[in-house]
Amino acid sequence: MMNEFGVLVEQVRGKRPLIHHITNYVTANDCANITLAIGASPVMADEPKEIPDITKIADGLVLNVGTLNLQKVLSMITAGKVANEKGIPVVLDPVGVGASEFRKATIHQLLEEIQISVLRGNISEIRFIAGLTSMAKGVDASNEDIGREESREEVAAHLARELECVVIISGEVDVISDGQKTVCVKNGHAMLGNITGTGCMCSSLVGSLCGANPENILKASVAAMVSMGIAGEIAYKRAGELGNGSFRVALHDEISKMNKEMIERLGRVHEGE
Amino acid sequence: MMNEFGVLVEQVRGKRPLIHHITNYVTANDCANITLAIGASPVMADEPKEIPDITKIADGLVLNVGTLNLQKVLSMITAGKVANEKGIPVVLDPVGVGASEFRKATIHQLLEEIQISVLRGNISEIRFIAGLTSMAKGVDASNEDIGREESREEVAAHLARELECVVIISGEVDVISDGQKTVCVKNGHAMLGNITGTGCMCSSLVGSLCGANPENILKASVAAMVSMGIAGEIAYKRAGELGNGSFRVALHDEISKMNKEMIERLGRVHEGE
Amino acid sequence: MMNEFGVLVEQVRGKRPLIHHITNYVTANDCANITLAIGASPVMADEPKEIPDITKIADGLVLNVGTLNLQKVLSMITAGKVANEKGIPVVLDPVGVGASEFRKATIHQLLEEIQISVLRGNISEIRFIAGLTSMAKGVDASNEDIGREESREEVAAHLARELECVVIISGEVDVISDGQKTVCVKNGHAMLGNITGTGCMCSSLVGSLCGANPENILKASVAAMVSMGIAGEIAYKRAGELGNGSFRVALHDEISKMNKEMIERLGRVHEGE
Repeated sequence: MMNEFGVLVEQVRGKRPLIHHITNYVTANDCANITLAIGASPVMADEPKEIPDITKIADGLVLNVGTLNLQKVLSMITAGKVANEKGIPVVLDPVGVGASEFRKATIHQLLEEIQISVLRGNISEIRFIAGLTSMAKGVDASNEDIGREESREEVAAHLARELECVVIISGEVDVISDGQKTVCVKNGHAMLGNITGTGCMCSSLVGSLCGANPENILKASVAAMVSMGIAGEIAYKRAGELGNGSFRVALHDEISKMNKEMIERLGRVHEGE
Repeated sequence: MMNEFGVLVEQVRGKRPLIHHITNYVTANDCANITLAIGASPVMADEPKEIPDITKIADGLVLNVGTLNLQKVLSMITAGKVANEKGIPVVLDPVGVGASEFRKATIHQLLEEIQISVLRGNISEIRFIAGLTSMAKGVDASNEDIGREESREEVAAHLARELECVVIISGEVDVISDGQKTVCVKNGHAMLGNITGTGCMCSSLVGSLCGANPENILKASVAAMVSMGIAGEIAYKRAGELGNGSFRVALHDEISKMNKEMIERLGRVHEGE
Repeated sequence: MMNEFGVLVEQVRGKRPLIHHITNYVTANDCANITLAIGASPVMADEPKEIPDITKIADGLVLNVGTLNLQKVLSMITAGKVANEKGIPVVLDPVGVGASEFRKATIHQLLEEIQISVLRGNISEIRFIAGLTSMAKGVDASNEDIGREESREEVAAHLARELECVVIISGEVDVISDGQKTVCVKNGHAMLGNITGTGCMCSSLVGSLCGANPENILKASVAAMVSMGIAGEIAYKRAGELGNGSFRVALHDEISKMNKEMIERLGRVHEGE
């Protein structure tokens, strides 16, 4: 199985998909660099006037609601519709969806008007959205509420069926589900939470992998999360004790060197449910 | 005394305050990473529609006028008022206030409409603002004009009394005053001026420290400046000769490792006036 | 000849020109840091209200159309006119000009309304613009179309005469022409294409060099490209095998240490045509 994920990762460098990002200005540089590091080509553009042109030439679309504003919402809707018409994958990163009514309403509107291919967030963000679509857990569930690993798998699978997309819950163990099949990725390191943008970068990796492999969104998503997890583990070993700055540099290093051999040797994926 | 500052720094990691930034897009990534490195949690948001929601859940607010625009001014006013109502600390960084009438007018408006907790700038920025509030030194004072250390202490103390807030003048020696008490921090390294964002990052650290310790703004401000100064010194020793890129990485490293022991051993603070 | 370029680079640190950037939010941090590293002083500002004030105090202007929006176009036009009146150099970076009608129209308008000093892009961007001004090659020429080195020299020289400015085509060999004289820079490393912002950073270096040496735009442009090329070569030797993150840090390091001796020893410039 790991062999398959390794192949998907290496295909990115061969196909060099163009990934259109409408994203926040805090981590846009990290996202562009990680997209290049995995072998894809990033383009960031959020002026409504140029959105159709840009999305039309792209192989994948990443929508990230950090530092959101009204104009970006308009651009996201337009880009999403073009992507849907064209049949390219759309990744949605609902950064801090629970933090404001505006983000909540935007995510709601995006999920109404666009067919998303992958929704990737942390457990709080995904649970918040699951609440929106009337699962019982509610919005302000604390980390204590969720506890058991099974429940995360259930949340992901349920929401995946509801939204007809792949749902990724990032965390110590990443849970990835298309509603039928649910996979757990046990790679990663807690230090990934100590620097900004690791979530956003995961979404860029998912966009890059799916852009290169649009016919296999679930496996491409798993391959992206395994890559980030392995890179985090090696980066920690190489540079964790030096501190956050060195860890971040090492993380970019390891994604740029990610290959089939590393994934086969270090990937820890197993199927749930 | 150093013991006390060390305790304040370590409390940030325990309390993990949420620090709302309305800031520029040049150094937003640096500010987010340094906020995480000291143990606080950053959120950047500047769409007027979501400002009240975001500021309401925050423990501190950092307003930075770099890459300012009309919309951000509106957001800053709204966020500042929410912060004042809620009683959370507000840090103002008047980046390049002397560079345009627009920034000057904005700072003037912010100081009129919001009660700031801490104003942090370099000597030119602070002198410019002091001029606005009718001190004699004027706006375009050159570095040669200021010369003696005493004058910086007087400027800080006078302005602190006028604005009823803590004033920090960053520089080779940082001067920090609440109008009654004035403190000098002799930590730091000239190389901090060779990379972008060290001023903005100082403001994020001040916001993080004050967010965790709102009842003691003066000491929290000193602890923040001592942390940046010590990190700069160690980063220079570790990586200064390698160049700007390595120095910057080491700076983030050292903030992420900052602790009571480092502050007690290396902090150089003494009271002025 | 290399001696001359080394002198130009070292003059930047002596003169510390202020370089006004209207640029994208993806690489703004990289641009600010590289501007500081070469010894100039960056200011990023794009609110139309403050543009005249900021450009008036600047020694050079860099216009970069990444993450373009309508407001930035307005700011660029205003800033360009102020720069032209004041007689300071204007560098235009037509990022992705072929990607949308909006970018194409904006570049067209900028070239109509502003006298540019230097146009710097990759071969696709420059060929696209050359097509706009009615050269025969057209817009969607593939890399295969161009092939021979001579053709790049011809494109640069022709466009330079048409626009009455210096044209830089970045690539494995950089071609720099003022229409009369055409120079090739053979420094650089392919890994520069693996991280985001190296093109934007080149434009910032060109702006910094021209800001310090406005009477000699062609030589200043060559000196900037030689600096980036040499820094890329050393960075690759030092850190290329570690990966993209380390390479990027080393690149910033080497620009911050760039000097006459390095340029004389390592620069590879020769005149074409």
